[in-house]
Amino acid sequence: MQALWLEDNQISLRDVPKPDSKTEALIQIRMAGVCSTDLELVKGYYPYSGILGHEFVGEVVDAPDKNWIGARVTGEINVSCWKCEACQHGRPTHCENRTVLGIVNRDGVFAEYTILPLENLHRVPDSVPDEMAVFTEPLAAALEIQQQVHIRPTDRVLLVGAGRLGQLIAQTLALTGCDLRVLARHQLQKDLLTARGIRIISEDDIHPGKWDVVVEATGSPGGFSIARKAVRPRGTLVLKSTYKGDMSVNFSSIVVDEIQVIGSRCGPFAPALRLMEKREVDPTVLIQDEFELKDAMRAMERAAQAGVLKVILR
Amino acid sequence: MQALWLEDNQISLRDVPKPDSKTEALIQIRMAGVCSTDLELVKGYYPYSGILGHEFVGEVVDAPDKNWIGARVTGEINVSCWKCEACQHGRPTHCENRTVLGIVNRDGVFAEYTILPLENLHRVPDSVPDEMAVFTEPLAAALEIQQQVHIRPTDRVLLVGAGRLGQLIAQTLALTGCDLRVLARHQLQKDLLTARGIRIISEDDIHPGKWDVVVEATGSPGGFSIARKAVRPRGTLVLKSTYKGDMSVNFSSIVVDEIQVIGSRCGPFAPALRLMEKREVDPTVLIQDEFELKDAMRAMERAAQAGVLKVILR
Repeated sequence: MQALWLEDNQISLRDVPKPDSKTEALIQIRMAGVCSTDLELVKGYYPYSGILGHEFVGEVVDAPDKNWIGARVTGEINVSCWKCEACQHGRPTHCENRTVLGIVNRDGVFAEYTILPLENLHRVPDSVPDEMAVFTEPLAAALEIQQQVHIRPTDRVLLVGAGRLGQLIAQTLALTGCDLRVLARHQLQKDLLTARGIRIISEDDIHPGKWDVVVEATGSPGGFSIARKAVRPRGTLVLKSTYKGDMSVNFSSIVVDEIQVIGSRCGPFAPALRLMEKREVDPTVLIQDEFELKDAMRAMERAAQAGVLKVILR
Repeated sequence: MQALWLEDNQISLRDVPKPDSKTEALIQIRMAGVCSTDLELVKGYYPYSGILGHEFVGEVVDAPDKNWIGARVTGEINVSCWKCEACQHGRPTHCENRTVLGIVNRDGVFAEYTILPLENLHRVPDSVPDEMAVFTEPLAAALEIQQQVHIRPTDRVLLVGAGRLGQLIAQTLALTGCDLRVLARHQLQKDLLTARGIRIISEDDIHPGKWDVVVEATGSPGGFSIARKAVRPRGTLVLKSTYKGDMSVNFSSIVVDEIQVIGSRCGPFAPALRLMEKREVDPTVLIQDEFELKDAMRAMERAAQAGVLKVILR
């Protein structure tokens, strides 16, 4: 089968064997999304060799339990051992022996087929089209914020960054009724937010030390610095992006201001699907371009352009 | 009156006017404690000029409300405006207009007298001697950890650092029933912990990524590094000390491991007094030396020696 292969920081379209498993479901990919993590893997921020991609919707074509065959599914990307301490304490996404779809020791979804254990799969409701379902993984990551932090309807919340993940975070935070402002850089980012009635803010208007919760979704030291200054004493700073290398930070002010800094990664799929089913969020507005798998190299190039939101592979 | 005065990173014993206030209580200092913050102020980590010292027990000798006269008291160090947003939202220790006893724009307690608003004062129960009551402020700071973080009886808790504050943190954390281990550097620190049945641990025995809660109380980058490695995914890292300058930290691992980092400063006085009244903690074991106020310069020198715990001024 065709697949987008990463090796030694080089991507190439290759013909690779179709995956085969007696214990996992074989899934034919219907649609896949390009994520910033894919671009970072190519840059070599993390060591990985294999098929890229982890955001997808597909159809089960073979499975240990035949009831799944024909099901339209999306899948959680962390494959857990269910035996280690993290798994047994209800933290399977932090499994010590995990593989991660298209990221850690497991071939991904920029291919014709992929495999995943049945317990990773979620059936997609009929009313949720592929164009929505392909966003389940990043939408779940956005919801992880609310899984970790209690966002009160009265909270002043600042979101720094309105890119691929930022847009989904903005849509989900807005549902809490909180007083949300978003710092966006590109015009399209601003337009999409404004169209949904989400208020944008300019950097100059961010009153320092006044925000109950600040979400940093740029992954840049500049974004972190804006976010840190904005959060109030005893407020919460959610880090939703990874940062290249180490970052130099004044920790004394974090102690004196009793700030809570919390890292946030993968989130729950079921509520993401529920919100899409009810049309409470609409990730499809992020789609800017679609490519066929044979043009995956071009899709990656397109996704890497500044300000580009979601690029889809069919 | 005599007072230990800090100016331009130099301390000196001076004769200064006795404080005078129509709105605040006049307190005769009975006993005061030297804290690491006092030593850091002398080093110039924060800009401050005036009388040093913020840990004390004293007697009210004059007050706007005469019922307080004769009361033996200890006092909260943050003097709040009660009008700013932080005050009105129940965070008076983060008051935007606060002065802080012996730290920010308010003369401290290494003197014969000090003044504080009545709302800052706590009456000391008769059964709590001066030698205990003088520890109310740092013991309250230790309890701030449990004010901010839910320590479960089943939690594995690692305390890095067993100095002045670390000893009090160890004593209070031990009361939760949690599985506590303390990394201590000096023999006296270890002996005091062992005498209370608190288990010490060597750095080599700290299993990385396995601790639910880690408290960093060294204020050194080395201590932070040990603490960061020890905390498990989705665990909590409490920063209980300030750090000189900026510190370079890998934030991507904090995001991927979904770590919560929380700064912790001043805490609640009432529970500190309750625990001392019930003898659930015994801070007096920390006292290593006592000096008269006229020998305050020598007291500061003694407190700055490596591994020295509490030095008291009478």
